[in-house]
Amino acid sequence: MQVRKIKIIGTGKYLPEQVITAEDLDKKLGVPSGWVLKKTDVRVRHVVKEETASFMGARAAEAALEDAGLVFSDIDCLVSTSGTVEQSIPCTASLIQKALGQEHSGVPAFDINSTCLSFLTGLDVMSYMVAAGRYQRVLLVATEVASVGLDWSHKESAALFGDGAAAVVISRAEEDEPSQIICSSMQTFSAGAHLSQIRGGGTKIHRRHTDQLEPFLFEMDGPAIYRMASKVLPDFVDALFQVGGCQMADLKLVIPHQGSAMAMRLISRKLGIAEHQLMNISPTHGNTIAASIPMALHEAIKQGRIKRGERLLLLGTSAGFSVGGMILEY
Amino acid sequence: MQVRKIKIIGTGKYLPEQVITAEDLDKKLGVPSGWVLKKTDVRVRHVVKEETASFMGARAAEAALEDAGLVFSDIDCLVSTSGTVEQSIPCTASLIQKALGQEHSGVPAFDINSTCLSFLTGLDVMSYMVAAGRYQRVLLVATEVASVGLDWSHKESAALFGDGAAAVVISRAEEDEPSQIICSSMQTFSAGAHLSQIRGGGTKIHRRHTDQLEPFLFEMDGPAIYRMASKVLPDFVDALFQVGGCQMADLKLVIPHQGSAMAMRLISRKLGIAEHQLMNISPTHGNTIAASIPMALHEAIKQGRIKRGERLLLLGTSAGFSVGGMILEY
Repeated sequence: MQVRKIKIIGTGKYLPEQVITAEDLDKKLGVPSGWVLKKTDVRVRHVVKEETASFMGARAAEAALEDAGLVFSDIDCLVSTSGTVEQSIPCTASLIQKALGQEHSGVPAFDINSTCLSFLTGLDVMSYMVAAGRYQRVLLVATEVASVGLDWSHKESAALFGDGAAAVVISRAEEDEPSQIICSSMQTFSAGAHLSQIRGGGTKIHRRHTDQLEPFLFEMDGPAIYRMASKVLPDFVDALFQVGGCQMADLKLVIPHQGSAMAMRLISRKLGIAEHQLMNISPTHGNTIAASIPMALHEAIKQGRIKRGERLLLLGTSAGFSVGGMILEY
Repeated sequence: MQVRKIKIIGTGKYLPEQVITAEDLDKKLGVPSGWVLKKTDVRVRHVVKEETASFMGARAAEAALEDAGLVFSDIDCLVSTSGTVEQSIPCTASLIQKALGQEHSGVPAFDINSTCLSFLTGLDVMSYMVAAGRYQRVLLVATEVASVGLDWSHKESAALFGDGAAAVVISRAEEDEPSQIICSSMQTFSAGAHLSQIRGGGTKIHRRHTDQLEPFLFEMDGPAIYRMASKVLPDFVDALFQVGGCQMADLKLVIPHQGSAMAMRLISRKLGIAEHQLMNISPTHGNTIAASIPMALHEAIKQGRIKRGERLLLLGTSAGFSVGGMILEY
């Protein structure tokens, strides 16, 4: 079963107070003035000073609850759908629950992770629990401190990222409401598992094993990922449209993972996404890992680019290597 | 909706080749002979030498597939339900897919994490996708290298753990088959979020921030956790029985998280679990984090302690602090 009568009833975001402009970053990276903007199209990204992932997640969650006209006690499940964690143990969702001041609530909290696609995977998976009535209202939170894991000697990739959080509340839609998830799909090709990675930080390369910093930093082979995405995405999207019984022209908006402006342009051309259909918030946010899709969704709603009942496609790739997509009527 | 016509169609496990006895550990810890056995009841635990989490997970997955009479191409979703990860990026499920030699399969792979309850949460969540027909057969893999994160100066907790992996394949049960999930529940009280934790390894305390080893090691306030579990579990289990329409005496078997023999004994007394109802594999496995429940389930099936249609309770607590339980007919 693909169609699920699910409604996005609230969205919110939080951006760290500290703003780093492209010019600031030119200086930090020791490159000529204008280099960062030319390479990345990211004018400003927000970067944490004192903010933790759970703090940002909690603020985004509060914004989403307010947007939905709800309070936390209306929520019966909290899922962190982030590509990074705040601590190795426990899961980030617990820490978000605590940062919300809801540490005695008992609301179940756990994490779903597929790196940059975590929000999309979480929305896909949890929609079935909501559709079945197991949970009434689920709070999905993607919160990312990308900056701490960047390798500043890899200027091109380091310049792409930003920190931040986004949250979405979902519930069941009534039969007479237009909102629904039409279909969704995910594919993982682990042949590309090591094309973007942080090798350390888990049980394989533990702090105990090495004094080096480098295994704990993000590494990425951009051209190889782009080749893989180009090969996989067209068939993947075709298949999704076939299940959904629609085509690109039927969509009001496409919200891609905000990996990089260049990747979004190239993919748009390949998939035939018109410029007016493309949601691109990367110039003012950078790539905020799994927060990028829900943050762009939030902006699309707030900017009036998508209205109730209109059809959109959420689409992205992630470390893994995975591709994911969902067609839904907002 | 609580009842789901779900069937566990195969289970498997993998234990590292290296065996560490209680006597070996007495020597390592510099304690009197017999101390480890007396404190933990763990006679032997298996500890990795070269094995990675993905390697162990792949071997357990192969065993589960063989047990189910399936091959990997019969699987349409692979979920790592582990409390630890192999690398910070990508998710462990991708790495397990690769270790299975299935790197071109496209089978979606992602992680679900609620520390020691990850398998239970994963089984709960994914059962709805299977019940709805989105996926036909899901492979759940819990694989843990606990040993690398232990703080050997905390002898009592370090002596409890073991490494290993377990895997379970689920599918939809036919209407005339007895197998089903009757009900399940989870509660998180993040007031206890810091009672068992690894503070480092995520974005809050990054390798970049400190040269110390200690933030990257597991810490646990056993007595405080026990107090919290004692307070929460009786009402939690009562409520679960109420939803399931049954009581402790109706269960063939209870499979608790194999946290420690002492905790299992105390909880059994508190909840009225008879000795013949309790599955305890900790003397020969130790606490293998999220692998502990599926490993004990695997052993229960292989040892004939649970048969098709018989009723069992999976139950545990985890860092977070969370409690989780599921009543099912195998």
